[in-house]
Amino acid sequence: MSRVYLDYNATMPLVQAARDAMIAAMDVAGNPSSVHAEGRAAKAVVERARAQVSDAFGASGADIVFTSSATEAAALACAGRNLQSAAVEHDAVGAWTSCDLPVDAKGKVTVSDPTNSALQLANSETGVLQGLPEGLALSDMTQAFGKIPVAFSWSGAQMALISAHKLGGPKGIGALVLRQGLDVQSQIKGGGQEMGRRSGTENVIGIAGFGAAAEKSVRELADGVWDRVAELRNILEKAIEASAKNTIFVGNESERLPNTSCFATPGWKGETQVMAMDLAGYAVSAGSACSSGKVKASQAVAAMGYDETVATSTLRVSLGPETTEEQILRFADAWLKAERKFHAKAA
Amino acid sequence: MSRVYLDYNATMPLVQAARDAMIAAMDVAGNPSSVHAEGRAAKAVVERARAQVSDAFGASGADIVFTSSATEAAALACAGRNLQSAAVEHDAVGAWTSCDLPVDAKGKVTVSDPTNSALQLANSETGVLQGLPEGLALSDMTQAFGKIPVAFSWSGAQMALISAHKLGGPKGIGALVLRQGLDVQSQIKGGGQEMGRRSGTENVIGIAGFGAAAEKSVRELADGVWDRVAELRNILEKAIEASAKNTIFVGNESERLPNTSCFATPGWKGETQVMAMDLAGYAVSAGSACSSGKVKASQAVAAMGYDETVATSTLRVSLGPETTEEQILRFADAWLKAERKFHAKAA
Repeated sequence: MSRVYLDYNATMPLVQAARDAMIAAMDVAGNPSSVHAEGRAAKAVVERARAQVSDAFGASGADIVFTSSATEAAALACAGRNLQSAAVEHDAVGAWTSCDLPVDAKGKVTVSDPTNSALQLANSETGVLQGLPEGLALSDMTQAFGKIPVAFSWSGAQMALISAHKLGGPKGIGALVLRQGLDVQSQIKGGGQEMGRRSGTENVIGIAGFGAAAEKSVRELADGVWDRVAELRNILEKAIEASAKNTIFVGNESERLPNTSCFATPGWKGETQVMAMDLAGYAVSAGSACSSGKVKASQAVAAMGYDETVATSTLRVSLGPETTEEQILRFADAWLKAERKFHAKAA
Repeated sequence: MSRVYLDYNATMPLVQAARDAMIAAMDVAGNPSSVHAEGRAAKAVVERARAQVSDAFGASGADIVFTSSATEAAALACAGRNLQSAAVEHDAVGAWTSCDLPVDAKGKVTVSDPTNSALQLANSETGVLQGLPEGLALSDMTQAFGKIPVAFSWSGAQMALISAHKLGGPKGIGALVLRQGLDVQSQIKGGGQEMGRRSGTENVIGIAGFGAAAEKSVRELADGVWDRVAELRNILEKAIEASAKNTIFVGNESERLPNTSCFATPGWKGETQVMAMDLAGYAVSAGSACSSGKVKASQAVAAMGYDETVATSTLRVSLGPETTEEQILRFADAWLKAERKFHAKAA
């Protein structure tokens, strides 16, 4: 039986449009900084992708600074500022910010000083969406962009982080989006690429893939692809709820990403669940991919007031456009079987 | 007539081996940080490439930290230290260092305090090679790696910068190489990838391309490909010298990269030459690609004691494994024709 990938929030498989754009860009030999025809052709690939990302992200007039990841974009946005944030933020933002804003039981963050705060649009583990206050300094939109309609220009945020591989582009390319007139202090200095904000020869192939994937993702959104994904997620949760009545669905009283389900079986370690499901043929996750090597409580879940037992016992299942109902039902069966085994052993 | 690309030091067209490895990596869906099978497969791609780069770079036992460019690697290596350097360094190193070490007329740098100095192995504009003193803190080896035999372990340097696209890999991926036991302060924080030195989901496709290109480049070196390139470079310089007797060949009294020729026609601006040759069908460069948008004197040439007129009148021609003798003779003809026109106008 073929494997089932249900870890789209960790990374989304490369979409065909991105693959095609990247293979085409492999033939562009020049350095975008070179003034000759080959250099101008490479520059044109970068600028076309910038326009695609800008259009898809509703960021007309804003500056798109391509970086090697949303994590790099976070460093560029956060270093030297003392932004406030909540403990639900990804470590890439959390590393630079205070993480002390209050989070309620539904996962909602209260921001007191927007112009000095960072707030994610969607949480990678629970899928919980935040309402962004006007004037917000920074929003990590990596998980939301491509899965729900997002328009940077209307978001209220001054800066945003986005990432290609969360929406079907390649890993290793992201961007910092800045309202016009804003500036950041460059950290990677040298040739002065990206308007001096971020030096280094551009990842032309990756940027081409980002542009194509972004364009495709908004087309799919408009076509209702993610509404169908939400239905599958709901089918999954109902199937689990029906048979494992004590399961805690974290964040499901809030508006969430259409594809994300985070649920806890207190006492059954998330890592153990991930390994059991991996052996059974399913790729799922406990916590965010970046920290999943470490056995620790989910910070996002703990921030919502759940105790250590719950916070170490969550599983994240994140679906994508390729996910089928058959896969979801098969996964639910396999997980419930493992869950019964766990309870039998614990009894 | 098809165009002739003679700007390999700006960037080398993607080699087939890198293209194949990148296309294969496009099918690897997982995030290298994920513990499930898909994640482990992605991790394996990264680690295989790390071993390829390490082998090709003679860096057994050293740490290879993948970055998005040699420029990023330079920031990681240099920030917070006050390294000394000479004005021949690339801006990526120069931005962080003193640039005041003496440079002689042949382009050679004298280092007084190796453990607090950065010194490139080869200059991107002139091709001049440096002898690295034992204990050197940092060497930018981006231009040398792949074109001449380099073994990091025997280089005397504690840290080195390398870049994929200078040896036939993709743009947007480089590495900082560190002797075992050394450490650097991470600047991009978050998920803790690359042993905590550089967070952010890895550029799996780019890294795969880097590994394959590095492996291919040392095979080609061993096969004598770059000896043939050096012969073509010498043919070019002889053809130009024979007809344009006042041409100054910068750095040609020193050991140089096999593929690089930097020559000045005083008074004939480098940028003008680049544009004239571009129109004639040849991609060449004035100064390094990163700064070639700006009309300014070549820093490396000026550092060797040449006056402003010479330093603004240099052309860099850099050849590669695909370059043919026919292309070189055709270029020499075209350049000499333009050079006669310049002198006729100036007269």
